[in-house]
Amino acid sequence: MAITSAPVTANGGRHSTVSLVQQLSKDHDLALRTFRMLIADLCQVFGAITFEQLKPYQSDRVDALCPGHPEIEHEGIEVTTGPLGQGVANAVGLAMATEDLAATYNRPGYEVVSNHTWCMVGDACLQEGVALKVVSFAGHPKLSNLSVIYDNNQITCDGSVDLTNTEDVNAKTRACGWDVVDVQDGCYDVEGVVRALERVLIVFIVGEAVRNYFHDLPARGEGYVREWNELVKRYTTEYPELGEEFQRRLHGLVFNPIGKELTSFMVGTADLSPSVNMTWPGKVDFQHPKLRTTCGINGNYSGRYIHYGVRGHAMCAISNGLAAFGPNTFIPVTSSFFIFYLYAAPVVRMGSLQHQVIHAATDDSIGMGEDGPTHQPVELASLYRAMPNLLYIRLGDSEETAGAWITAIEARTTSTIISTSRHALPQLNQTRREGVARGAYVLEVAEGADVTLIGVGAELTFALDQPVKYKRGVLQHHRGIPAAVIEPYAPNGWERYADAGICVRRFGHSLPGKAAYKFFGYDIDVMTGKFVDL
Amino acid sequence: MAITSAPVTANGGRHSTVSLVQQLSKDHDLALRTFRMLIADLCQVFGAITFEQLKPYQSDRVDALCPGHPEIEHEGIEVTTGPLGQGVANAVGLAMATEDLAATYNRPGYEVVSNHTWCMVGDACLQEGVALKVVSFAGHPKLSNLSVIYDNNQITCDGSVDLTNTEDVNAKTRACGWDVVDVQDGCYDVEGVVRALERVLIVFIVGEAVRNYFHDLPARGEGYVREWNELVKRYTTEYPELGEEFQRRLHGLVFNPIGKELTSFMVGTADLSPSVNMTWPGKVDFQHPKLRTTCGINGNYSGRYIHYGVRGHAMCAISNGLAAFGPNTFIPVTSSFFIFYLYAAPVVRMGSLQHQVIHAATDDSIGMGEDGPTHQPVELASLYRAMPNLLYIRLGDSEETAGAWITAIEARTTSTIISTSRHALPQLNQTRREGVARGAYVLEVAEGADVTLIGVGAELTFALDQPVKYKRGVLQHHRGIPAAVIEPYAPNGWERYADAGICVRRFGHSLPGKAAYKFFGYDIDVMTGKFVDL
Repeated sequence: MAITSAPVTANGGRHSTVSLVQQLSKDHDLALRTFRMLIADLCQVFGAITFEQLKPYQSDRVDALCPGHPEIEHEGIEVTTGPLGQGVANAVGLAMATEDLAATYNRPGYEVVSNHTWCMVGDACLQEGVALKVVSFAGHPKLSNLSVIYDNNQITCDGSVDLTNTEDVNAKTRACGWDVVDVQDGCYDVEGVVRALERVLIVFIVGEAVRNYFHDLPARGEGYVREWNELVKRYTTEYPELGEEFQRRLHGLVFNPIGKELTSFMVGTADLSPSVNMTWPGKVDFQHPKLRTTCGINGNYSGRYIHYGVRGHAMCAISNGLAAFGPNTFIPVTSSFFIFYLYAAPVVRMGSLQHQVIHAATDDSIGMGEDGPTHQPVELASLYRAMPNLLYIRLGDSEETAGAWITAIEARTTSTIISTSRHALPQLNQTRREGVARGAYVLEVAEGADVTLIGVGAELTFALDQPVKYKRGVLQHHRGIPAAVIEPYAPNGWERYADAGICVRRFGHSLPGKAAYKFFGYDIDVMTGKFVDL
Repeated sequence: MAITSAPVTANGGRHSTVSLVQQLSKDHDLALRTFRMLIADLCQVFGAITFEQLKPYQSDRVDALCPGHPEIEHEGIEVTTGPLGQGVANAVGLAMATEDLAATYNRPGYEVVSNHTWCMVGDACLQEGVALKVVSFAGHPKLSNLSVIYDNNQITCDGSVDLTNTEDVNAKTRACGWDVVDVQDGCYDVEGVVRALERVLIVFIVGEAVRNYFHDLPARGEGYVREWNELVKRYTTEYPELGEEFQRRLHGLVFNPIGKELTSFMVGTADLSPSVNMTWPGKVDFQHPKLRTTCGINGNYSGRYIHYGVRGHAMCAISNGLAAFGPNTFIPVTSSFFIFYLYAAPVVRMGSLQHQVIHAATDDSIGMGEDGPTHQPVELASLYRAMPNLLYIRLGDSEETAGAWITAIEARTTSTIISTSRHALPQLNQTRREGVARGAYVLEVAEGADVTLIGVGAELTFALDQPVKYKRGVLQHHRGIPAAVIEPYAPNGWERYADAGICVRRFGHSLPGKAAYKFFGYDIDVMTGKFVDL
């Protein structure tokens, strides 16, 4: 169950229209039955905490169980959703995780994976771009295990929703391939379930009647867990290899230092497959099994390569949902140009708050070239170097690339951005993969050096290529041996380690990569005379 | 005319479906006629440059007129669009600018403003969240001066569009209140205009026939300009006051040090009006004049306060379009919580590349409080401090707030983020509005001080141009007296000015603002013993 950041809002007595959006199934009774199951699930969550625990909602108590937004560290919450639109994206990821695991591990008589993902959204959630993208995307693989409850309560901070919206949300959602079931009177119809939902979630007055009605839920839930454990046991007896792999996946034990086939990887591309090179021989795409595309690229639900279209933000948000399925059952990998991780920054942040997600960012500098200043990141590294619980790694060559992937895979509770260049780089003799996890290491020591050159990523090679003449230059500083950094980014933050640098303090320029480097003075002869104070 | 970042793609001989999306007008003939006018406009743009100038497309030439993406510094290009989805957002802003100016200044017989905005988008543009948001938003005010040509050419980098899309784009767009006109055979129908468009824009082989057909366009365009100048002259005679104000707006001369009524301001809110306090007495909302909302907040096209709904990214992207209408004819102002400028970061960046846009960011720290770590920015300032051509100003009190607005308004080619707290701040005796523009200033000097304290609201403008002498005067850095910064953000970047600090190296915590400050040690007694090396 995924809960979005916008809980169902109390609506001051006016009636709201609830669109019970369910994909594929045309069975309206099923929709209503599952809707009731959702309420039961919710009560189970809230049944686990006491009234006393509910009271400190938004209070000063550091250990409060009811913060303003659902937070992953509390029981029953699989994902911190926070900003509007994230929850529904996470829900799509959770549903995809289920489809993929089911297609990979289920066998006749052994339905070891059969989750259904529920998501509740409000008017405001569906105004956010990331929500619109995932609604569009989720219709494509025809996920049958995802239901979204849309509460059209007409309430936003500024006023009624018709202040900014005149669209037909149901028609839009249908146009994306969803089935939509309308419940006109969302407040008092459907045997009062919506009203109960509001009361339980928002007003936090759980009446005795509701409490009694659902009092046996925890026991019932424990029964389901027991049944499922027995099923997995029998499954593992019947299919020992699959069963063991499945359990390893669930318990996050897939990776080891020797490296197995990385069956946990779910690799996404935001329409940049030819550029980011993240495919592998024999890869299967995650697609509806019956889809037949014009370009002939098809797949099935067991696939682990996902074409997200031009939906980078959605790719990363859905990946957070994949990661939320179970700790490390999936290790979602996203891929795009580095600059597009500015689009995805809000969800890279959400991932860093809670999950292991690996982002493979390419074309990470002015070497991006012809696409010009709009595509050349010069300030983005400053954000990611400051973001908590995120490893941001720029690579100098393929040896360091190996080190970065090892580091990222072993960082089980931390997200990573692996940042690489667009252009080919020389393989350096001095790089060491085991140095990467340490953040920095010494590549070369010259006797009696006057300066320490700091190279990063694609520009690492420049640091090594500097002539002796420069190394014996006149950079004097109060710290003894001064350090100089070479990176075509804003210099902000380097002051901690360097005294001088060759950096870029402006937006980029539209030029092919090599020419762009030259334009900005990244040329051995020019650089020698160019170091400036940070 | 606004051109999106995705030019019409050559489609290898296959037929494409062009949806000629036009709002309001049901007149299909009009759509076709205006479509032809668009081609003429394009030819006019390209007619202004020679074949020799076309050849360096994506070449090494620093002064090439044909970079990979349209760039504002080249004639005929009003806006740098860059990443997919931005162009259509800009187009909505341009169309709103027109409606607003027309509603404000047009008089019977004097239609001094009558632009029509054209926009071309491809499949991939309409996958982006910001595009989906502006399509949704633009349907609301029923702009009648905006047409979007959607080329459903089924080509993306990874393969055909049906690899990731199964939705009905026309139905979705209609559901947002647009009229949609379908041109089934987009390649060969409509008298070959689409084919000509492709050839002119992409293959860059402008045939002699096309060239001859449109050869009188520049002269015709000059004629239009002459006619319009004469109209404005007569208008100014008839309505002297309006005419002068209109011309001041067009030439960007509205603001002066004494401060007039800021008629150029177009103030947006992303559903946070009650929190960001950007309304003013007697404000008029920008709305379709016939709209009657449930909450009773209505308006007309002359309004300068815009409810964008929960569409912060779109608000900023549309604001870039408003700014693009003419230099400083509009000064768009956006407003939201600071953390949501992470959502909007890609377009704050696009604005900084080219325009004056002012972003009023509130709730800018852990004082954000109850909304928790997902809403508490701790690393975002690092991004904006590193972003070129952007003033990022954090304020200490209302005196500095006045200074920030003066600075932002006077920065005619630069965007600004004015960042304020959620909680009330004391009015300090030592603050000076004129100090803000300089980036930093001395508040108080104590004889024989052992340390320079850098306050959160004082040392915060990203002022690259400050002379070193001034900086060293303000901060006694490296001259014996250490400096310490107090800011509840990641410390990255402060090393340039400070030796120690009380900063936050982790994500925030869900607590009311005051409690959050205490939780992170921002308490006089605690802080005194807490300064740590950066």
